[in-house]
Parts: sequence; C-alpha cells; structure tokens
Amino acid sequence: MSKLISYYQANGDRFVEGLKDLLRIPSISALPAHKADVRRAADFIVDDLKRMGIETVKLIEGEGHPIIYAEKMDAPGKPTVVLYGHYDVQPPDPMDEWISPPFEPTLRGDDLFARGAVDDKGQMWILLKAVEGLLAVDGKLPVNVKFLIEGEEETDGGMINTYLAEHGDELHADTALICDTEMFTKGLPTITTGVRGIIYTEIEVTAAKTDLHSGIYGGVAPNPMQAIAEVITGLKDKDGRILIPGFYDDVEAPTEAELDAWKQLPFDADEYRETEIGCTELTGEPGFGPIERLWARPALDVHGIRGGFTGDGAKTVIPAKALAKVSMRLVPNMDADKIAQAFCDHVKALTPKGTVVRPKVLAASPAAVVSTDSVYVSTAAEALKETFGKETVYIRCGGSIPVVGLFADAGIPPVLVGFGLPDDNLHAPNEKFHLPNFHQGVAAIGRYLQMLGE
Amino acid sequence: MSKLISYYQANGDRFVEGLKDLLRIPSISALPAHKADVRRAADFIVDDLKRMGIETVKLIEGEGHPIIYAEKMDAPGKPTVVLYGHYDVQPPDPMDEWISPPFEPTLRGDDLFARGAVDDKGQMWILLKAVEGLLAVDGKLPVNVKFLIEGEEETDGGMINTYLAEHGDELHADTALICDTEMFTKGLPTITTGVRGIIYTEIEVTAAKTDLHSGIYGGVAPNPMQAIAEVITGLKDKDGRILIPGFYDDVEAPTEAELDAWKQLPFDADEYRETEIGCTELTGEPGFGPIERLWARPALDVHGIRGGFTGDGAKTVIPAKALAKVSMRLVPNMDADKIAQAFCDHVKALTPKGTVVRPKVLAASPAAVVSTDSVYVSTAAEALKETFGKETVYIRCGGSIPVVGLFADAGIPPVLVGFGLPDDNLHAPNEKFHLPNFHQGVAAIGRYLQMLGE
Repeated sequence: MSKLISYYQANGDRFVEGLKDLLRIPSISALPAHKADVRRAADFIVDDLKRMGIETVKLIEGEGHPIIYAEKMDAPGKPTVVLYGHYDVQPPDPMDEWISPPFEPTLRGDDLFARGAVDDKGQMWILLKAVEGLLAVDGKLPVNVKFLIEGEEETDGGMINTYLAEHGDELHADTALICDTEMFTKGLPTITTGVRGIIYTEIEVTAAKTDLHSGIYGGVAPNPMQAIAEVITGLKDKDGRILIPGFYDDVEAPTEAELDAWKQLPFDADEYRETEIGCTELTGEPGFGPIERLWARPALDVHGIRGGFTGDGAKTVIPAKALAKVSMRLVPNMDADKIAQAFCDHVKALTPKGTVVRPKVLAASPAAVVSTDSVYVSTAAEALKETFGKETVYIRCGGSIPVVGLFADAGIPPVLVGFGLPDDNLHAPNEKFHLPNFHQGVAAIGRYLQMLGE
Repeated sequence: MSKLISYYQANGDRFVEGLKDLLRIPSISALPAHKADVRRAADFIVDDLKRMGIETVKLIEGEGHPIIYAEKMDAPGKPTVVLYGHYDVQPPDPMDEWISPPFEPTLRGDDLFARGAVDDKGQMWILLKAVEGLLAVDGKLPVNVKFLIEGEEETDGGMINTYLAEHGDELHADTALICDTEMFTKGLPTITTGVRGIIYTEIEVTAAKTDLHSGIYGGVAPNPMQAIAEVITGLKDKDGRILIPGFYDDVEAPTEAELDAWKQLPFDADEYRETEIGCTELTGEPGFGPIERLWARPALDVHGIRGGFTGDGAKTVIPAKALAKVSMRLVPNMDADKIAQAFCDHVKALTPKGTVVRPKVLAASPAAVVSTDSVYVSTAAEALKETFGKETVYIRCGGSIPVVGLFADAGIPPVLVGFGLPDDNLHAPNEKFHLPNFHQGVAAIGRYLQMLGE
C-alpha cells in the first residue's frame, strides 16, 4: 500500500470528525436568517485549509456569501487544477420528517446523516482531505491547485457567476474538478458528462384587494388559489408534456453512442420506481425512457404554493393572492433566456378571469455537456477504476450545476467526479453520505492528482 | 325618549369598553394552542351575564369548546326567545396585513377594528347589552329569554350540533334570534331569510416516499403539487361551473317574489366589484347575476395548499405530499351528505398518474331558508324600522350558519337579524364593527324584545 493510502486510512476517522463539525453549522444560503452561519462555515474551511499547510487562503467578498479561494502553486511545469465544491446547504424543511436533527450529524450503520452530508459539504471535504494527505506525505503537491469553494450553489450562485465571468481567465487553470455529483449505483465509479440547466421562477396571482370570506363572496370573487391551479395545469398537461410554445424546439438529442452506453447501465425501471422513488407509477414526457427523460429531456416542476390558509382545521378564506414556485430543467442547446421569456409570456397568456398574474424569473442557467475526449477525464476514470476496482461509467445528471457551464465558458474544461448515492436524499429530509464512499473518494481524488502530476 | 333608549345611550361607552375587553381574548376555536383562550372568553361572558342579574348561567361542557347557557324565565304567558351568538373567532392570519394588531381592539373613526369585532363577539354583545338594559330599567324582562352562545361556530359547531339535536325540544322556545349576519348596506335595516350550507374538505395527494430533488428526479417522479392543481381544475372549470357529477341536480331556485325583491335592492355590480372586492372582473357560474350566484347558487373555493417549499428564495423540491383545503357552499334542497359523497367520488376519480388521492370531509351542513310569514319576523322588521327609520329589507346570505337549520329542525323558528356591514372584513385582516351599528343594534334588539312582550 502506498504511503498516501496509508495516510488516508490512518486519518479517516479524524477526517469524519472534522466533517461532522462542519455539518453542525446550518449554512443555509437561501435563508437570510442564516447569513452568519454561512459565514461561519466559510471561516471553518479557511481555518482548515491553513491548518493543512496552504498559505494563500482568502475569502472573495461581495454582495452575497463569500467564495473561498486558496492556492498551492509549487509544481512548475505541472497542470493547474481548480478544485470546486460548495459549503452552503438546502433548507432542512420539512423538519418533522428527519429521524435525527438535520444539523446534528448522526451515524447510523455506515451512513452519516445530516443536511449537507453529501451535498456538498462531504464531497467538498473529500477535496480538502485528499490534498491534505498529499501535502502530509510528500511535503508538496504533484500539481498546482486552486480551490474555489462557493456558498451560493443552493441559491443563485451570484458570486461565483460574477467571479468566473470576470476573473475566470486569470485562473490560468487546465481543468476544474467538480465534486458535487453522484455514482450511478453503489460501487460503480462514475464520471458525469452533462448537467441540466435550470430556470427558477415565481408566479404571483392577485385578485381582490383583501382576503375575503368564501361564504360572503364565494361565487363572484376570483380566487387566486383556483387561478394558480389553472396556470399550473396550463404549463404541463396530464401526460407530462410541457405546454409552453416553442419549449422543445431547440432540444439537442444525445448521441447514439451516449444512448447506447446508457442502455448498458444496470437500471431496472420498476425497481427504481419502487425502491428509490416509492410511488405507484413513473410520470413524465411520453415517448422517452426514464433515463432519457432525466438526462436528455427538459422538465417542469412546482415546488410549493404560498397563500391562503394551510393550518389545521377550517378557515373559509378566499386569499387576495397566491404565489407558486416553479422551475424548469433545461437540456443542451436550450437557450435559458429565451425559454425564460417564453415561460413568462405563456404564464401571462394563461391569466385566469378576474386576476392579475405576474411571473418572475429568479435564476436562469443553461445545461452543459463535457467532452470525454480529454486527458483529465481519462485520468480521472483511471484513478476511479484503481480505487473502486471496476470500470468507470459515464452518465449525465438531471440536476443543475451552473458552474459546469461557467468553467467551460472561462476556458477551463470541467471534470465531474462524485461519490453520492442515489438514495442519499439530496435536498430532502434524512440526507446522508455513505462513509465508505467518502473514504474511497478521498483516495480516488488523491490518486487522480498524483497521476496528473506523473 | 323611552327610559330604555336613555339607558342604552347613557351606557353606550361602557358597553364598548366591555366589548373591547372581550376582543382582547384570542378565542380562536380552530387552533388547539388557543384552547385556554376560548375558555377564558366563555368565562368572561358568564361573569358578565351574572353581573347583569341573570342567576341561571352555566357552561355546557363536552369534548369541544363549551356552550354558554343562561336563562331568565320570569315572564309567564309570554313567548320564550332563544338568543344565539358565538364567542369564538377566525384565525387572524395573514398577520402582516393588519393595520393594528388583531387582538388589540383599536378605534379608527367610528369603526372598532379587531378579530371578532363583528363576527361575532360584537353582535353577540348586542344581545347581552340589550337584555341588560331591559333588566336595569324594568327589573325584569318582557319575554322569557334563553341565551345559547357557542364557541365552535368557526370550526365544526360540534357541541351545539349535538346539543340542539339531543336537547333542542327541551328548550320549549318559540323563536331563536340569531345575531350573526349583516345589513345589505349601511343604514338599511335587514333581515336574512336564508343561508347557504357548507361542506369543508381536505384533499391529500401523496406520491413518492420522501421529498425529492427536482433535478435528480424531475421528469420521472410524480409531483403532488402538480397533481393537486390537476384535481382542483377538475373540480371547477375556467368559467366557474362546478364539474362534480350531479352537483346542481337538486338545487332549488328562489321564488319569483324573492327574485323580484332582490332586483329592488340598491346594488350596482360594477361598483360592488370595484369598491367592495377590488378586482378586475367578477367570476362565477355563467347564466346568473351576482346576487343570485351569492345567495341562490352553490359555490366551490380553494382556501390553501399545504406542502413543498413556500419560503423566500429557491428550493428545488418535489414534495412527497400536498394538501388542499376546499369548501363548497350549498343552497336549499342540496343534500349535504349526498354532495359530500359525490365530491369524494369525483376527487378520487380525478387521481393523477402516479399519485394517491385521499379526500376527507371535515364538516357538512345544509342550507336553510326562513319563512317571512311569522309574527317574530314581522315584529323584528317593525323594531328595526323604528330604530333605523327605514323599511326593513329581506335578503339571503351567502355564508353558512349551521345553527339556522339546527334550530328549525328542533322546532324553534329562527329569525336572523344582523348589524354587520359588507366592508367589515369578515374572516380577513382588519375586521371591524361600525360602532353606530352596534349602538343601534342594542336599541333595536331591546325594542324587539319589548314589542314581543306587548
């Protein structure tokens, strides 16, 4: 066994304790009340980077939550690798469905449960610990490294968006390793070659000047709750086809080679429906299989509807307004701005009788695909294969990682290597990280950087 | 001026101070956290009844909030009148739209603002103060009086429902005066001759076993928020026609005489839309005018949809479940149980792909109409005319007062006299009572009881 792998094994428990300390900080970027916690998480990581022997560490400040920047540039002639992750997390609600509290990391079996365990504190921590081991064993790094760890991935990514657009080319990096994705299935090393884009919107519907009593006014007053239901059903039909005019026009189909490779993946739609989702029937656009619908077709989802009375018991109110949160996932070649405009136009055209409908776009970023024809991708595949003892597979991801496109635009080809599992409950109660994946992730990333330096 | 009216005028300010004390108690019957407050409001009224010289006062206890029962039976040979009101109130949300806090009664101009000001603490207080004046001036009452003041009108009325069904005939009363309605317009004395019934329901939609990330699962996972929108739009079409099979089958049309009388009322649909509702267009069932839609046609409204993410910012969740609160208003001859069953059957038949839909009926009570051919109604009309100096009009009410039907079933013909105004913001923020109506209400009810004793 190499000195590096021995170091990782000897220090694995300490790595996990450090991660648990980080997970205790509720760095929920979407909630203003947690602004100080987000900052505290950033400071925690800065301290750890310094402790492991990286001198150049700073916070890039701005209007939003800070980006952590750190560099170790003492491998002349070797490639420069950006290491990307994020330290912010999703809100934890619904709280009552957590078996253990979201910000009290709890080990059950081999799984560490906490909000952010896998998305993305745990995976970001892999990058830090992999580098720590290389430094500890060799006193220097085999490649030049620049950490970019953001705190707004779960909101609009405003800070990193601006930073990469304005300073991306100054990074002079050869590749960006993004550690925020998952493995296709347990034990199967995986590289992700595409992510969907996202448009996040709010639709506000207003009607009367004040809330009304449904007895006194029911039958004449427009009801924003009913109206918002009409708008929502006007966005997607019962079969799952999105009704926004022109929505599918620019969709780029995956290559035959990709489709063939996806067919080889170990996937049983019925088992997936039953064990991973737990519903009676899968839904979605007719004419495409589940994997294609997730990775290569756009989607539209409603996340919640605010307004009216939702407490226990009975209140007979016709609310003055209602607000729906709706997002779309985009696939390659769909123009995010164009789709956002088409969405707003369509929503306004759906305006139900007696109401005023106001769509608002909170964020819009396009899909991105990564070419597999690169030494950084092939080396990553090799390092993963060595660690996991299996051939690496290439998949896409239905989720959205806007920095993938931002790195590509800045001339830094991204490589997406992740160690989450499909049942890790991302963005949901009881989020977890399978700790064997954490430890193998540290080893694989350490080996990847070693191999890149050879 | 009579001694009675003089007493009312001399004590008017004190009456209002007492009402304000009662309004400070947040007796929200729908919210379990306010159980003790509901009790406190009942005790407050009991104390006041005793203070005014009524010896027989008790709380009728049971599983729900207590009914206040009080009687003064020292007018042999005279009619026995039940005086009905309620001391519970609606929840105050949305809180941020109140100009002054809902449980700090605040006078602005001639209007007293507070939750419950008009519905129904203020109007119930009219009954107490009218009787107090008669007792103070004459030392006895002109008729026999039995107060029945309940604390569950804003929920399911379970206690009074049971009480009237089991003990209504033991009341041996000739009429029930219900003070919980409004005047057609300011200054126009009004008797209400019909109320709509109500069925209050919840529709729960479930799909996956846990909340899901819309990136990872968007395009294959059924979304309960989308599904509940589909169910809602399957209940009522865009034109306002309710789609439940058989829903309109048994609807009894108003008489020609009623329709003619309604046409005489001072009503301008466009002014009503603009000043009272404040929306761009009225909605509702095609083929009927606004007054007919409100008083003589059934309606269906959604009050809120629970589930998913409704906070500020962006969270990309596909929630595991969603719950809609939906109620229907019923008109004469519609069987509440039959309609409730038709609703549940229809909701289940609408079940969207991949989801499980569970309708639940929280309360169901039929509409009721009151005959105007009664000495109690004509005397009330006479007392109102004397107080307000105008001919009394007969209207119906779109709201639901289940006790109207319960009294009728118990053989006690109800009379509905109310002093609310259309802009009193019932069940909404900034609920108020126009204090001149409070004082005239006290005088009119006092005179009514005097006239009944003559």
